[in-house]
Amino acid sequence: MHKEILRDIGEKELINRLGKFMPKNQISDDCALIKTKNENLLINTDSLVENVHFNDITICPEDLGWKAVVSNISDLLSSGSKKTIGITISLVLPARTEWFWVESLYKGINKALKKYGGIILGGDCSKGEGKIISITAFGIQGELELRRNACKPGDIILTTGIHGLSKLGFLIQNKIHFDERFSLNKRLISKSIEHFCRPKIYPNFLNHLLKTRSNKKLKRIGCTDSSDGLFQALQDLAIASNCRAIINYDEIPKDKNWPKGEKWDEYYFFGGEDYELVFSLPKKWAKNLSKRIKNINEIGFFADGEPSIEFKDNKKNKLLENTPFKHF
Amino acid sequence: MHKEILRDIGEKELINRLGKFMPKNQISDDCALIKTKNENLLINTDSLVENVHFNDITICPEDLGWKAVVSNISDLLSSGSKKTIGITISLVLPARTEWFWVESLYKGINKALKKYGGIILGGDCSKGEGKIISITAFGIQGELELRRNACKPGDIILTTGIHGLSKLGFLIQNKIHFDERFSLNKRLISKSIEHFCRPKIYPNFLNHLLKTRSNKKLKRIGCTDSSDGLFQALQDLAIASNCRAIINYDEIPKDKNWPKGEKWDEYYFFGGEDYELVFSLPKKWAKNLSKRIKNINEIGFFADGEPSIEFKDNKKNKLLENTPFKHF
Repeated sequence: MHKEILRDIGEKELINRLGKFMPKNQISDDCALIKTKNENLLINTDSLVENVHFNDITICPEDLGWKAVVSNISDLLSSGSKKTIGITISLVLPARTEWFWVESLYKGINKALKKYGGIILGGDCSKGEGKIISITAFGIQGELELRRNACKPGDIILTTGIHGLSKLGFLIQNKIHFDERFSLNKRLISKSIEHFCRPKIYPNFLNHLLKTRSNKKLKRIGCTDSSDGLFQALQDLAIASNCRAIINYDEIPKDKNWPKGEKWDEYYFFGGEDYELVFSLPKKWAKNLSKRIKNINEIGFFADGEPSIEFKDNKKNKLLENTPFKHF
Repeated sequence: MHKEILRDIGEKELINRLGKFMPKNQISDDCALIKTKNENLLINTDSLVENVHFNDITICPEDLGWKAVVSNISDLLSSGSKKTIGITISLVLPARTEWFWVESLYKGINKALKKYGGIILGGDCSKGEGKIISITAFGIQGELELRRNACKPGDIILTTGIHGLSKLGFLIQNKIHFDERFSLNKRLISKSIEHFCRPKIYPNFLNHLLKTRSNKKLKRIGCTDSSDGLFQALQDLAIASNCRAIINYDEIPKDKNWPKGEKWDEYYFFGGEDYELVFSLPKKWAKNLSKRIKNINEIGFFADGEPSIEFKDNKKNKLLENTPFKHF
């Protein structure tokens, strides 16, 4: 059964089979349909390319499906989405691809949608040399506009969760050897693989923000996600908002088993694919939130000045000379 | 200048440059935003894959950009879109791709958007082995719901324009030789290349339908586009609507210079990429419309029975034994 490939299945039958993953109320037609109610729609598109973003060794198709959905919903959440409506899926697959692979991918996609909301609205499938999963996700803009350019000097910088774990998971899955002095803690290993293969996101983030808001007039919040790493997220916020990010190294939340050293700091700041939210709030709001929600931490503040990132402890600034993740 | 490639430009600069093609009011952020007003949204996703749907020999990047937009808007129109809001673009490009290529692609994209409406709402760009242009287009559902499953026995089948020209254009661009007995008419040659490289669509289609409607209670119309060929369009309508399509071969509109013969019938029925609209209407409405609009023709009718396609003239039925265009 596992060996049945797309070339043998044929296009019509493939479309039939994919249709079974979609809810029955969707029009099986040229277009998908969204019913809107005077609400603003957030849209996000992301592509995962084989041998660039994934390969069959590091991640199984079910996890890949999960991750493709989660990375898109993370972008919606980081813009202030209050509800995910659904996704369209554009697949490019070699004709030799096994049906089992496609089925597993869709299982992962539907598991993530079940967990975080939304349905499959439609999509298409084309033949190609390598696998590509391109997802467009739709959400409803909530009361707070979370935007990269809404950070203000004086704002506290906060982050959800812990960074670097996904990068470590990636290295472990790729069987990249570590210096033997670091005999990695077993819980850290399984946690890192989990973060890489089945990242979690924060569907209640907007509610937490609303519940801890110190002043109802505040409607715009500086925010992005750390899909390209914590450093890149901070840089994107600093550039879009035109201010200086000052980070307190000692306050950044690390896994208790995370080793010390330059290499490990590099994984932490430049790793990427953690899908944590990096954002800024006025002092009082930040205090309310970080006190109330366990896995949200203050890590620094924004100040007036040319867009840049620096550490409170100058000795740590050499960290920033590393090259961040590059797509090209 | 033409030799500047993406690897030398780098990701950040590439995103900057692509941003210049977008309207200034779009948020440069994790997500794109659509403001909705209690209207239903139509969504369509289509991918063009290098060496499957296009290559550098048959089509230049500017034409490719035009065509990528037009093929998506065609799907919106065939569902009854009254206005195109915009598109998101997901590009996969090898690092060796020249910037000139990307710039030309966007020129073509913006030319099509200028002609048919809509703006670039957002998108992303990833490295990959071959080029892929994946576009998601958004339109507003108009008063009439055009759907594949809305054809009824007794309805007249109509089509805009002429089929097969795009296929002929593709063959000419690929320098595929024709039997020497057919010395092709020069006007047919240039028209076919035009249809293949710069296909036109029907932004006024919905208005024409509304203006010629015989009964205001009629709200649902059977319709699809011929992006996969006239035969495939008829088959999709017949299957989705569960009825028999009976085609009058003598009524199908051909270019006056279109040669006769089985090969040419095959190009006509199975060619694809013409983006003509294939639809069905009650008799009176069909008459009103085809009389009023020059390039809309009646080509047959739907009847009760198992989903199928047949010709009024039985001798032509052997045509239908050919294999239609296959993606896998």
